[in-house]
Amino acid sequence: MTTRRRAEELDQADLLADFREQFVITDPGLLYLDGNSLGRLPKRTIEAVETALHGEWGDRLVRAWPETWIEQPRRIGADLAGLIGAQPDEVLLADQTSINLYKLAVAALRARAPRRTVLTDSGNFPSDSYVLSGAAADAGGSIRIVNTDPVAPSSDAVGALLDDEVALVSMSHVNYKSGALHDMAAVTAAARSAGALSLWDLSHSVGAVPIDLNGAGVDLAVGCTYKYLNGGPGAPAFLFVARHLQEELEQPIHGWWGHADMFAFEGDYHPAPGIDRFAVGTIPVLSMVGAREGIALTAEAGIEAIRTKSMAITSFMTDLFDELPAEFGFIFGSPRDPARRGSHVSLRHPDGYQIAQALIRDDVVPDFRAPDVIRLGAAPLYTRFVDVWDAFARLRTIMESGSYRTFPKARARVT
Amino acid sequence: MTTRRRAEELDQADLLADFREQFVITDPGLLYLDGNSLGRLPKRTIEAVETALHGEWGDRLVRAWPETWIEQPRRIGADLAGLIGAQPDEVLLADQTSINLYKLAVAALRARAPRRTVLTDSGNFPSDSYVLSGAAADAGGSIRIVNTDPVAPSSDAVGALLDDEVALVSMSHVNYKSGALHDMAAVTAAARSAGALSLWDLSHSVGAVPIDLNGAGVDLAVGCTYKYLNGGPGAPAFLFVARHLQEELEQPIHGWWGHADMFAFEGDYHPAPGIDRFAVGTIPVLSMVGAREGIALTAEAGIEAIRTKSMAITSFMTDLFDELPAEFGFIFGSPRDPARRGSHVSLRHPDGYQIAQALIRDDVVPDFRAPDVIRLGAAPLYTRFVDVWDAFARLRTIMESGSYRTFPKARARVT
Repeated sequence: MTTRRRAEELDQADLLADFREQFVITDPGLLYLDGNSLGRLPKRTIEAVETALHGEWGDRLVRAWPETWIEQPRRIGADLAGLIGAQPDEVLLADQTSINLYKLAVAALRARAPRRTVLTDSGNFPSDSYVLSGAAADAGGSIRIVNTDPVAPSSDAVGALLDDEVALVSMSHVNYKSGALHDMAAVTAAARSAGALSLWDLSHSVGAVPIDLNGAGVDLAVGCTYKYLNGGPGAPAFLFVARHLQEELEQPIHGWWGHADMFAFEGDYHPAPGIDRFAVGTIPVLSMVGAREGIALTAEAGIEAIRTKSMAITSFMTDLFDELPAEFGFIFGSPRDPARRGSHVSLRHPDGYQIAQALIRDDVVPDFRAPDVIRLGAAPLYTRFVDVWDAFARLRTIMESGSYRTFPKARARVT
Repeated sequence: MTTRRRAEELDQADLLADFREQFVITDPGLLYLDGNSLGRLPKRTIEAVETALHGEWGDRLVRAWPETWIEQPRRIGADLAGLIGAQPDEVLLADQTSINLYKLAVAALRARAPRRTVLTDSGNFPSDSYVLSGAAADAGGSIRIVNTDPVAPSSDAVGALLDDEVALVSMSHVNYKSGALHDMAAVTAAARSAGALSLWDLSHSVGAVPIDLNGAGVDLAVGCTYKYLNGGPGAPAFLFVARHLQEELEQPIHGWWGHADMFAFEGDYHPAPGIDRFAVGTIPVLSMVGAREGIALTAEAGIEAIRTKSMAITSFMTDLFDELPAEFGFIFGSPRDPARRGSHVSLRHPDGYQIAQALIRDDVVPDFRAPDVIRLGAAPLYTRFVDVWDAFARLRTIMESGSYRTFPKARARVT
């Protein structure tokens, strides 16, 4: 049996251990394993938000736009580029993930007309499928769904459904349920050789997994900043457009921030050269500051060191899972090879919703995805091995006592 | 001549004078007349942002979504509804103004097909024209532009260009240059009788002018929260959809926040009933909190009291303008009747760019819109009559000394 002592030893050897000090932790007893949904608050973000409130908005007022804010979406995009294998002028902070996905999917469909099919897979976020399906339908086409094995997604399966009707292949880099990593380079190459563009959603990998967009020849990408990047609730998302496509693509929402001369207030829309044309309008500054700080902190830690710890800690979860009695009835819902997964592991159980509620009651915060997936996320900058060990200990107690049965079988319907 | 003593008397009689105390004012010598572009920082917003940072994000982490945040876009929308003559379930905080305009314009064009013309006017924001033009082109149509008199926009002129090709009439309630108010009820009625939908941009009137969307029979509206509502830089925008149209319209960006059951993670997109279907994705929480506080403060002051002061203070600007020597060469660029304008007045001058720069140097912050418009905004919650008097005194000194001539003739091109 893996001991708590072993977890403590792993924490002592953890090269990123000091980064935990950089986060606000109000309740040391809380085992927070949902950094894959909303990352923790970095202390530096508090100071940065105070500066934006007092020093910029309060004191400089509208003058802060030219002095500070207007350049931030590009600058933050350039900082993020270093984490995802992109050039600084290929990434922009803008809007929300679904909106960026829409803009780029519509642009790609138009660029590849008369092709009008979007290929995605059964492991994609439902929210992405909604957007892609709508965009494809508006182009007179539809989405085509590759039925991928959730724990072993195959690029061959994607390739088998590619043909000359496919304008765009769009998938999530990490399966939001199983945590499985797609082979980005192989899928992208298959898309390209079939004449389709590629559009990746990096929301569940950025800040946890090294990404090499240029190396893989990726055309387009989007992602959020509030998961492993710790940008804060609803912080602005980002988009990536490979340099060689920037002038070719035109996105459908013609906003003033995407105009060639945004302060000219001209009558006609002329898209800006370069990445700026994919912007629409004003960015929410206070939330943007959170994204900036979270990205900077991640860059400071270094994505390779983050990945090393991430693989170690999700492997530790795997070990602890293997020690759970079989009669508890869990199925391991993630790839067993750490190189094949992102930074969370999934435990599947028919009573998963009830068990997740019991964990929350007992100060363990995982999350739950219908119908049966409990996700345990490891955020390498602050999740400790002892947190994981303690969480499994509490899970064991819950299962042995059956205390989860007091919760309703499924969530109430919420819109 | 109007004296400074007169300005002081007007401030003493101002029923809203105490509201200035509710704002952060770091530099009492700064005459801030650009609340029509970015409103000041309310003190209560500082506390609210701190709560969102520490008490919600920092302490409750992802649990703050169901506990607090998820309901906010609807709640804040409901609060705002009271300021614009709408029902609580007709308004939603969401995204940015240009994105909301896009969503509603596309939805309207689809609902009114085969009509595919969008009627707007020469007084609309260029940014709105970009969006509308793009949306109309995507529907196979185009925009048609009514050439309105900037200081006396006529609903008859709009009516004259309406025909059975027009799907949508979309205009800004207040002309962003002249400050002239459109006759919302008359334009909306003309649109309706021609079989077109109406879509108003309230960015320059909300929080300064009483608006009665339901009374005027308006179909659709959008607006920002960072001008007179003091929501903060880039704070989320809002949208309004009249109840009777909510089930009929479908917007093009199929996001999970617009889904009938957002946590079902179903394969297919089913739009939510009601206003929720016009949402897309996660809202930027820290910036959202600013919108909430700004709206609450405005509601507390009362829109009728705000309008009364707004008309008095822009009339005071008019008086001071009339006392400027004719040889200065200014043209009054706004309606002279306070009932016909919003809360700013425009001074037009061939050297307007240089004069605006000189004002900023001398601690007066107006804004400038090419080619020749200096806008002086009155934000009734914090602009004092003495601020206006002092600003005109500094303007007079600038003109008498010719000190503005040291500035370049036009702004450098900035994207």
